[in-house]
Amino acid sequence: MQYHQHGFRPGNPNVAPASGAIPNFDVLPETVDVLIVGCGPAGLTLAAQLSQFPGITTRIVEQKDGPLQIGQADGIACRTMEMFQAFGFVEQVMRESYWVNETVFWKPDPKDQTAITRHGRIQDVEDGLSEFPHVILSQARIHDLYLDVMKRSPSRLEPAYSRRLLDLKVGAKAAQDPNAYAVTATLEKLKDGQPTHVETIRARYVVGCDGARSSVRKAIGRQLEGDSANQAWGVMDVLAVTDFPDVRIKSVIQSAKEGSILIIPREGGYMFRIYVEMDKLSPTERVASRNITVDHLIAAASRILHPHKLDVKSVAWWSVYEIGQRLTNRFDDAPDDSSQPPRVFIAGDACHTHSPKAGQGMNVSMQDGFNLGWKLASVLNGRSSADLLKTYSAERQAIARELIEFDRDWSKMLSTPVKTTPDGPGITPQAVQDYFVQHGRYTAGTATRYAEGVLTGNGAYQHLAKGFTVGARFHSAPVIRLGDAKPMELGHVALADGRFRVYAFSDASEPTAKTSAIWKLCDFLSHAPTSPVKRHTRAGEDIDAVIDLRAVFQQPHRSLAVQHMHPLLMPAKGKFGLQDYEKMFCIDAKTGTDIFDLRGINRKNGCVVIVRPDQYIADVLPLDDFAGLTAYFAKSLLPV
Amino acid sequence: MQYHQHGFRPGNPNVAPASGAIPNFDVLPETVDVLIVGCGPAGLTLAAQLSQFPGITTRIVEQKDGPLQIGQADGIACRTMEMFQAFGFVEQVMRESYWVNETVFWKPDPKDQTAITRHGRIQDVEDGLSEFPHVILSQARIHDLYLDVMKRSPSRLEPAYSRRLLDLKVGAKAAQDPNAYAVTATLEKLKDGQPTHVETIRARYVVGCDGARSSVRKAIGRQLEGDSANQAWGVMDVLAVTDFPDVRIKSVIQSAKEGSILIIPREGGYMFRIYVEMDKLSPTERVASRNITVDHLIAAASRILHPHKLDVKSVAWWSVYEIGQRLTNRFDDAPDDSSQPPRVFIAGDACHTHSPKAGQGMNVSMQDGFNLGWKLASVLNGRSSADLLKTYSAERQAIARELIEFDRDWSKMLSTPVKTTPDGPGITPQAVQDYFVQHGRYTAGTATRYAEGVLTGNGAYQHLAKGFTVGARFHSAPVIRLGDAKPMELGHVALADGRFRVYAFSDASEPTAKTSAIWKLCDFLSHAPTSPVKRHTRAGEDIDAVIDLRAVFQQPHRSLAVQHMHPLLMPAKGKFGLQDYEKMFCIDAKTGTDIFDLRGINRKNGCVVIVRPDQYIADVLPLDDFAGLTAYFAKSLLPV
Repeated sequence: MQYHQHGFRPGNPNVAPASGAIPNFDVLPETVDVLIVGCGPAGLTLAAQLSQFPGITTRIVEQKDGPLQIGQADGIACRTMEMFQAFGFVEQVMRESYWVNETVFWKPDPKDQTAITRHGRIQDVEDGLSEFPHVILSQARIHDLYLDVMKRSPSRLEPAYSRRLLDLKVGAKAAQDPNAYAVTATLEKLKDGQPTHVETIRARYVVGCDGARSSVRKAIGRQLEGDSANQAWGVMDVLAVTDFPDVRIKSVIQSAKEGSILIIPREGGYMFRIYVEMDKLSPTERVASRNITVDHLIAAASRILHPHKLDVKSVAWWSVYEIGQRLTNRFDDAPDDSSQPPRVFIAGDACHTHSPKAGQGMNVSMQDGFNLGWKLASVLNGRSSADLLKTYSAERQAIARELIEFDRDWSKMLSTPVKTTPDGPGITPQAVQDYFVQHGRYTAGTATRYAEGVLTGNGAYQHLAKGFTVGARFHSAPVIRLGDAKPMELGHVALADGRFRVYAFSDASEPTAKTSAIWKLCDFLSHAPTSPVKRHTRAGEDIDAVIDLRAVFQQPHRSLAVQHMHPLLMPAKGKFGLQDYEKMFCIDAKTGTDIFDLRGINRKNGCVVIVRPDQYIADVLPLDDFAGLTAYFAKSLLPV
Repeated sequence: MQYHQHGFRPGNPNVAPASGAIPNFDVLPETVDVLIVGCGPAGLTLAAQLSQFPGITTRIVEQKDGPLQIGQADGIACRTMEMFQAFGFVEQVMRESYWVNETVFWKPDPKDQTAITRHGRIQDVEDGLSEFPHVILSQARIHDLYLDVMKRSPSRLEPAYSRRLLDLKVGAKAAQDPNAYAVTATLEKLKDGQPTHVETIRARYVVGCDGARSSVRKAIGRQLEGDSANQAWGVMDVLAVTDFPDVRIKSVIQSAKEGSILIIPREGGYMFRIYVEMDKLSPTERVASRNITVDHLIAAASRILHPHKLDVKSVAWWSVYEIGQRLTNRFDDAPDDSSQPPRVFIAGDACHTHSPKAGQGMNVSMQDGFNLGWKLASVLNGRSSADLLKTYSAERQAIARELIEFDRDWSKMLSTPVKTTPDGPGITPQAVQDYFVQHGRYTAGTATRYAEGVLTGNGAYQHLAKGFTVGARFHSAPVIRLGDAKPMELGHVALADGRFRVYAFSDASEPTAKTSAIWKLCDFLSHAPTSPVKRHTRAGEDIDAVIDLRAVFQQPHRSLAVQHMHPLLMPAKGKFGLQDYEKMFCIDAKTGTDIFDLRGINRKNGCVVIVRPDQYIADVLPLDDFAGLTAYFAKSLLPV
């Protein structure tokens, strides 16, 4: 991490200097740039992102009277860990969480169908898919870590709790003046759950992260559409003693007659979660009508685990739910023809709900927030036009649709009775295991791929870097930093700071030669009137304030000399004009993990990989496609 | 990390439940178990260690009026990182610090003796020496991280600032009653540096961590003895622009006529430290008499860097000092014949001072505190007799003597003029580089080896585990945890919790067989009257409260079944009797890093490795040497 750039500053470098006087966040101001409704994973990701920009006024309100104490969601996909790295708390999550290293599959014992037996054991995440593990940690802790990011940010942002949204109106000015505080929100302040008084706040943008019963969604007239699968499931977090041997390994367990359970070991070494298949419901029936208690859950789990014993000592949390997959057709208030940019957005459960068993919900919701955050910041900071905001619904609604479809298939599979005779009805345990393995990249969150559009190129030069899939997340790989010989992950230079990254992978020539493609690229970026760095960076800003260029060389680091590189790769920054030595990287010759090989980069020609502020690959271009670079940034950034 | 063992507890698992009402730490009580004088690295390590034990009352006082803001020391050896792991904040240090990956050596250019040229470049830490890097981070931040550990501990310990020690007296009761509050400390409270009133506090033990001018040292009549080398050096932390290419790599630079400098890049990517050789002093002269300013330092560094430019933009901190190596003959107040256990100890700079250039001082001081902490806790918790405390001075004074000798050689080498002709006087640059490489393990802090004594065996069975050197620190290696298939470092099970670890490496037989050596060991430890686990663990305590047994198998983890292992390896713990699945480990078959190969463990017979609470290897024993195990623990632990 970089600090002391503008002079030595004692204290914790993770705490940014405050940008000004710190307001009382429990008092809502008359106007804000962004009002976020709801302190769930989507809302907090968004708030943490916006809190990084001192020029943007953000408030986040929450109906509950304080931070979440007991979490519902717990699964954290590899892709989410990569995002946590950008927010600066992945080490903390690594430390506290349970790591899902393997998954086991149990089926009816062929010798005794009343018992279960293990039939499969697989590595949970395939090798090399991400530098981070798949982990399990309470949603409440994730909230805490985001709240810490907010509190350490320049704006010291904190939520305003005990606020219920009553009404939301988008005024006529929305269409006339992009800067108008055109959205009026009416909230009531609560005390002990009872309203005390009404508050009004006007915002440029409002984001509803207020869950499946979202008031924001209702206010903009969107509806969750889909179906309920008429299958009740129970979930409980327990401290228990059992002779089931895989209680510390994620387990998919299918019995012959008693249904299925999933066991998800939890953080801390002792607690585990059990998802239990409960009753089939009639088409019109709601699960609440069944009066299912935690004792029912324990009894059902015990029957499925037979002949293993389950002695529950303490239940930390439990719930019963129906499986359903529902989705809104848009995630904003823009007209269907997108003729006007949106003013109100919805994210997370407010626009997509589904079962918890694929461990996807919290992850997709946080990615909603991450996708929207930098776009709002770019528009509010005057770097992009409001049209950029149209891409949020377009991109995320498609991802949510994929999730709904995946969840429908996986839930159905887990609710289908297991085959007990070769020709009988039902599903084979092997088919369940095969489906799980096939969709490993999907559940790891790395299969997300945005379609061609304003922010994503057409991949015409994908062959120059086959492992950096256009539209997918930037897949990090090990490198050596040239300036200080540090072994590190290239992807970890990407922080949640709203900047684009341009990774220039060198061609085969000596990078210090003025004839090399990388030198010419640096010359173009430094001097050409059409250089996107020059076109989109304001006077007085650091050269990398908007577009952060990084070079990766195919030579071992000891064979290269920093002092002979293009000056743009060691730029002078800040008030002292100090040089940044962290722009250049080399292959890791010692461990033999050559990023050019790992990601299929063309060694003769090299290439440029453009990465969005949310870590998704915008495009792969030839090193000399200057016009392509100019054109890409012109689509989403305004000239200064 | 383990938590929720005694029931689900919301919130940050890094914050322990408070052990009782939290006192106002700015008010000194009449009596305490331990009074620590001085909030430096030694004092804070000790305080952080003692704060983990709710039954022990500790206070730490400091003359300054608040936490250190600008650090002096900055080097953190690999061995220290291992200790930080045990305290729970190594990830934070990894994240914030500069990593010393390589060291470069510059000498006079043979073609132009007024210029310098790079002649050597080496990896700073040899491969496999530690799982952690050698890093650089401000002492002030290390202090902060220890203060966080204290604040999150059961006792919520905080320092009492603005306290100057006036006097210390050990009363006659010290010899008569081991539990007496026999040491009386008189302090004055300061306000704006001026005394306001006098306070008296009686303690069972007092530890002077109050620096080179230690009042505690003077009170017990010990003296720093040694010499001053009559060589002035300057040190400065700067933000500067330079064309010296290795400014982000640790550099040893020797010029022909202008002397030497060391460059130590600092955390944050921009700042660096320069140690500059200044004037020779006459034998009676003190450096203060020279009126050296920071401009002199900058000018001298610039001359040595010629032809490179050094444009200093900002100086964060600077100082001038003389090199000297001094040491006290004991680190406590016990009589020379050790007929009485000590009541007062000194640690860190209070008992050993030397030059900062080997980057050792802060590290050795913290190890002083770590060595003493668990011993004081063991005595105060009634688990050991006060005689255990005699080992502190015996062990640490020997280590400090080695440090003094190393520092004398290294400082002399850096102050010796460089040879400018093959037969001329001075030292060759190659000799400097060779010395640095030869002593790499020493400067990494991994060469510390305690001699045979109460706590360290004679190593008669060293051949059973050649890589676990008796007396040296436990050298971690990768393993797979059997219960949840997690890849991890075996050494990371050791926390700073005052417990001994017994690692049982299995013999060649199937570990589930009742005839296997590991099964028999577990039987002995579970049932035999002479079992150290039974002899030293109190009724009602967890079975691993004093001696934490861990088994390491030579089979791959998928070939072993937890449910068939000896019950002692999956013990029931806590109020719910929940099973601990984190006691068993296997070789990492996938990556091919087999701990039995890496550490030279006898595969036919296996072995037992006993590790002290401060991570040092007490002894290596055969798996069936039950008498040896009993005897080892009987030397330092009392029977219950």
